[in-house]
Amino acid sequence: MRVVCAPDKLRGSLDAAQAAAALAAGVRAAGGTPVEHPLADGGEGSRLTVQTARGGTVTEIATVDALGRPARAAFGRLDDGTALVEAAEAIGWGGLSAVGHDLLNASSAGLAAPLLGAVAAGARRIVVFLGGTATMDGGTGLLAALGADLRDADGNRLRGSAADLLRTVSIDLAPARERLAGVELVVAADVISPLYGPDGAAHVFGPQKGAGPELVALLDDGLRRLAPLLGIAPDATGGGAAGGLGAALLALGAGQLPGAELIRGLTHFDQLLASADLCLTAEGKVDASTDAGKTVSAVVDACAAAGVPCVVLGGTITPDADRLYQRGATAVLPIGTGPRDLDTALLHAADDLTRTALAVCRVITAGSTALNASRT
Amino acid sequence: MRVVCAPDKLRGSLDAAQAAAALAAGVRAAGGTPVEHPLADGGEGSRLTVQTARGGTVTEIATVDALGRPARAAFGRLDDGTALVEAAEAIGWGGLSAVGHDLLNASSAGLAAPLLGAVAAGARRIVVFLGGTATMDGGTGLLAALGADLRDADGNRLRGSAADLLRTVSIDLAPARERLAGVELVVAADVISPLYGPDGAAHVFGPQKGAGPELVALLDDGLRRLAPLLGIAPDATGGGAAGGLGAALLALGAGQLPGAELIRGLTHFDQLLASADLCLTAEGKVDASTDAGKTVSAVVDACAAAGVPCVVLGGTITPDADRLYQRGATAVLPIGTGPRDLDTALLHAADDLTRTALAVCRVITAGSTALNASRT
Repeated sequence: MRVVCAPDKLRGSLDAAQAAAALAAGVRAAGGTPVEHPLADGGEGSRLTVQTARGGTVTEIATVDALGRPARAAFGRLDDGTALVEAAEAIGWGGLSAVGHDLLNASSAGLAAPLLGAVAAGARRIVVFLGGTATMDGGTGLLAALGADLRDADGNRLRGSAADLLRTVSIDLAPARERLAGVELVVAADVISPLYGPDGAAHVFGPQKGAGPELVALLDDGLRRLAPLLGIAPDATGGGAAGGLGAALLALGAGQLPGAELIRGLTHFDQLLASADLCLTAEGKVDASTDAGKTVSAVVDACAAAGVPCVVLGGTITPDADRLYQRGATAVLPIGTGPRDLDTALLHAADDLTRTALAVCRVITAGSTALNASRT
Repeated sequence: MRVVCAPDKLRGSLDAAQAAAALAAGVRAAGGTPVEHPLADGGEGSRLTVQTARGGTVTEIATVDALGRPARAAFGRLDDGTALVEAAEAIGWGGLSAVGHDLLNASSAGLAAPLLGAVAAGARRIVVFLGGTATMDGGTGLLAALGADLRDADGNRLRGSAADLLRTVSIDLAPARERLAGVELVVAADVISPLYGPDGAAHVFGPQKGAGPELVALLDDGLRRLAPLLGIAPDATGGGAAGGLGAALLALGAGQLPGAELIRGLTHFDQLLASADLCLTAEGKVDASTDAGKTVSAVVDACAAAGVPCVVLGGTITPDADRLYQRGATAVLPIGTGPRDLDTALLHAADDLTRTALAVCRVITAGSTALNASRT
């Protein structure tokens, strides 16, 4: 029995590769043959996930972090020439926890170096994974760094930041577009938030990034002013991803795909299913957002299309996770061992995945034997 | 797909019939045909469980409770003439919670009436379910009520109680044996405790029944003195069941069977499996004691013998529950939805059983389809 183990990360406990390994151990214990295929939803870890599946090369490059300090970032290249850039690797939270963070001054400018590096290396298609950035500048730092011309009412040139958003009156994107001419940009978002408003970047992600109510209002106001300057629809899906970085890339002509869908394609997940008897996927919390374009729902879709049974395992299963059944999931099962607190659950996630994977494999094998015996 | 739903009770939350109904709802939702077959382990609810499966008649009879107050008890009769008596129905905790309880004076005498009622009704085989009694008298109250002659050192006749155990010097069982002549007695215990000692009735069950350390020591001393008077081996398995009632019945020549095994037989469980594609069983906590002769292990044994897949569901799964795999269980799975406290878990047990039963049925059906498709 060949079992594809294709989980997302279990946040706070296991990354996707660790989760895949834990599932694989259970498959092996049940006598099956596991195929580890960690996945992601377009957020942090996505580039690595794709390159784990597809190989290719990684080029490190000098840049600056969200606070403008020297930093290293990377772009990846697959054998087919597609380049991969993950925003969080350049301007993410990684190095910032120790210094605190000023959302008004943080800038996405540091993402320009890996993007331009990929262009210089000859990439004709660049996939940009959003999510996990420490910025709320609507991508204006990146635009300026790519050569776009941002001006205030007095004609002063601006470098782009959340603070600058409040006084930017014009943006000429032409120089930036020129530097990316002939390159197909694809952005992969793990969220569908619009640029501003109650569901926008500032209101939804500001508090997570440490902003209080007043700062959130200020940031939202800035992003609201940005939309017409970029010439994008105010309700463009994903415009609010990565502190509005999504909107800037859309304005540069980028195509947009849900991250999980894109990674499903980039990792050749569907081809893998062709020879699978079963697929196990997992994430920490299986809920309505799972149904709305996260990894688990992409896996369920792919399995349904391929006719492969798909069992979804979760640390927490909320009632609305039942919608995965309508989507075609074979089953949604919890991995816990009983009443306990969250910390204990996080601590035991790997063992719990292994034990549950073993159980599921044994049930599916039993079904193949017993049900068919009873029909003869 | 025909699915036998054969759970024990989930203590603190669902009785076995409710649990079976909850599992059946999940089976039905998955398109299967459920067969509800609630089980028990010989403790409280066992008579009702057997009669739910087998029918027969129930005769109510006047008796006294563990504190000597007027009470009603019952004996059941199956079509094959077997009588069923449940100790907890006569001398259990049922009516006593309001008055408190004095273990030194409590007596098992009230069990005599249903026993003798069954004999008078012509029963040649009587199954006595132990467990759940409010007594610690080593069954001496019952023996005296059946006519056995208990004396103290001064030759005074005793009525039998935990207090009397400390001064009983002789027991003549002959009159009691005579009243049960020609009757096959079978005791069904849900525990394997010996009469006394660290694993005996007083030490293991005394504290549950409200006894402090001093009273436990006194009760244990009494039970220790009883063993030679009854002529039973001090380490006889199950002698300590129901406050030592097991020992008294063994002394009367009763055969003893683990309760779960006995109920497996009495309810014709194995015959039911002959036409089953899958069996679901469940209990609140699946642990080492599950492995040691409780309902769930009896179900796993029966399924292994019949070649029917058996999936064990539990509110809590402890690590040692893995031993059920060695016993032949197809899988052991939790029913929870994630980190939470025990009260919340108890409250949602029925929904959780239904949801998990649905998932398991879908997995086993998927196994039958997918794995066989991949072989052709």
